[in-house]
Formats: sequence, structure tokens, C-alpha cells
Amino acid sequence: MSKVFFDIGLSLDGFIAGENRSPQNPMGGVAPAIHQWMFNQKAFWEHLKTTGGEEDTEDGDRIRQVFARTGAYIMGKRMFEEGEVSWPEDLFMAPVYVLTHEKREPWVQKGSTTFYFINDGMESAFEKARASAGKKDIRVQGGANLIWQYFNGGYIDEFTIHVAPVLLGSGIRFFDGIDRTTFSLKTIGASHTPLVSHLTYSVGR
Amino acid sequence: MSKVFFDIGLSLDGFIAGENRSPQNPMGGVAPAIHQWMFNQKAFWEHLKTTGGEEDTEDGDRIRQVFARTGAYIMGKRMFEEGEVSWPEDLFMAPVYVLTHEKREPWVQKGSTTFYFINDGMESAFEKARASAGKKDIRVQGGANLIWQYFNGGYIDEFTIHVAPVLLGSGIRFFDGIDRTTFSLKTIGASHTPLVSHLTYSVGR
Repeated sequence: MSKVFFDIGLSLDGFIAGENRSPQNPMGGVAPAIHQWMFNQKAFWEHLKTTGGEEDTEDGDRIRQVFARTGAYIMGKRMFEEGEVSWPEDLFMAPVYVLTHEKREPWVQKGSTTFYFINDGMESAFEKARASAGKKDIRVQGGANLIWQYFNGGYIDEFTIHVAPVLLGSGIRFFDGIDRTTFSLKTIGASHTPLVSHLTYSVGR
Repeated sequence: MSKVFFDIGLSLDGFIAGENRSPQNPMGGVAPAIHQWMFNQKAFWEHLKTTGGEEDTEDGDRIRQVFARTGAYIMGKRMFEEGEVSWPEDLFMAPVYVLTHEKREPWVQKGSTTFYFINDGMESAFEKARASAGKKDIRVQGGANLIWQYFNGGYIDEFTIHVAPVLLGSGIRFFDGIDRTTFSLKTIGASHTPLVSHLTYSVGR
């Protein structure tokens, strides 16, 4: 059964992004603090169609597995705009449904990534993603606002947070946008390497 | 080498306690949410010198290990006052140094728990705890304010947070009291059962 999930990096004090985000300053500049564990992995740079990273450990396997399980993405307009300027061709290797008010033709890339621009709401984006994903899973990619909408709307089956051992002190606190009254969580996974703890939860209603 | 540590329960959104704490309302009433994994364990109730709990799993072993490693405790006045009214005799089975302005004779209990009331500051309490602990470890027990003082003062070698899969939305955010500029963290442990993730960090300076 296809699952709907999100998979995000957080600081130990719960921030998913810093202040003053823009396409020129994605994530408010905190990506090196939160995502260092990814940047160290060859698997991460392979997906960016370049080389980099010194390591190929269980953290790299995890990166590959998340790409492999995902049959379709749903993305917010702001995240798309932050990424559009720098993502390489065919980063996602699956359809990406971008929720936006902008009317725009699909952006078909070489390979299997196509960005579709959805103007008629989250349920419409979800149905299209479900049809595309087949037996694979649907990833609600981000940003925070989009994940909150789908979480609070009852769409999310499970999620993983990658908790970096850093404190940021300011920015967007991820869990502040979650409606606390509508669900229960069960811890279904925890593992670590020195730069990160990977925690996975299933969501009950 | 004897270590200095703290070991606390947090909600997934980072709260160590709720609002309106008092001896009549310890932890602001959120203990059932944060500590359910402990309350399910026989080991927890054994230490309270009573019976309770349905389970005796790795979570119970963890409770026993934390008591076993601890040779002395340092505690804040407020936590002591919240607990004094309800703790059973000899709960801690080691000396407990309570930082307070109250002048009071040591409270010697049956067994090996003695509460000492320290009026001349955190360094004095620490030195007494170190002398008592011998080769065992020193636990900075709580509350949050006391842990912040010792963490920010550079005393803490490692810590464990037990993250419950619940969101509280308000109360005392534990990491807000940590001075972010003075240390680095390494993730050295992560495990889980359905009701909790146990994350352990070492502190570098």
C-alpha cells in the first residue's frame, strides 16, 4: 500500500529553517548546520549529478532509499522557487506537483522529472500524485507550510525527522504548525551516526 | 572517569514541563504525556518502593542503569519542593545536593539517600557531589533551570533526552535555556520503543 510521508531535517531545538529565506538564501542559510550529515555522503551528490562527499555509509543508503521509494512529490511554491535556480536536471526522477497560483505549462526535464503546476488546491495535487506514484510512496517534500497543510488535513501516514546535534535558536519551528488535537504518534524507528539522529513516526488518527 | 550528565524527558516539540508548576501540580501536569514510557515499566515503580507497571523491557533496563551509574545528585530547590511532598523514603539511594537559600540540616533517610541543602552556590554543590560520587557519575537532576546553569557553566559531559511522541504546544522549552555558543554536540546513541526515542549526546567544548 502506497504511503504518504514527509522526510525533513531539523535542529535539536526543532527548527526546519532559519530567518530571511529567499531564493538567494535558501533555508535562511542554515542548511550547512542541519544537513551536514547529507553533505558528507557521496549519495547526496550523486543525486545532484555531480561528485562530492567523503563518505558512503548507512546515511548514504538512507538517502538512496528515500529517493527509491518515492513515486511522486508534492511541493510548495516557495520551495520550488528556492530550488528552481539551482537544482540540476532530473533531480527528483519522478513527477513533482507544485502547488501554486502561477499558471504555467509543465516543465518536462530530461529523464523522469516533470514539474506540474497545480492551481486548484491540495486535494487536486494529492490525487494527481497518487495516480502517478502507483505502488510507490508519495513524498510531501516541503516547505514547512505545505507539510503542515497535508499533516493537519490528515494525509500523512508516517514521517522521518533527521535531527542534527545543533541548536539554532531562531527560525521556523517545525512542530509549531502542527495541529496537536487530531492525531497520535508512535515511534517506529531511531538510529544515529555522529552527525544526526534519524527518528521515524507513524501517524494514527 | 566519573561523568557529569543529565537525563530528561521531553515532548517531540521540546518541552520539559508545562505551565503553572507547583508542588500541587508537578511538571505542570504533563508527566503522563512525557513519561508514559517510564510509568509502564515495573522498574520505575520498584524505585518508588511500590508496585506498578505492566512491562519489563529494555526501557526498564535503562531506568535501572541510570540509577545504578549515579553516585550523587544535584537538584534545584523547586524540583526538591515539588518532590518532597510525595517521594518515598530512599528514592535516590545516594547523596542529593539541593541548591537552595534555605538553611536546613541534612535530611538523612533510611537507606542511602541523604538530602544536603547547599547555600553557597553551584560550584560548592558540584565539589561535594564529586567527592560523594567516587567512580560513579554525577547526575544534574533538574529542574530545567539548574541543568541550564550547569550546562552553560561547562560542567556537563553527556546527556540523554527521552523524546515522547507527543506535542505539548506550551510550557518550558528545554533548549531555549542553553547557551548555543559554547559547545558542540555529537550524537552517540539512539534507540526507541513505541512510546519514546532515547537520544544520547556527548558535549565538546
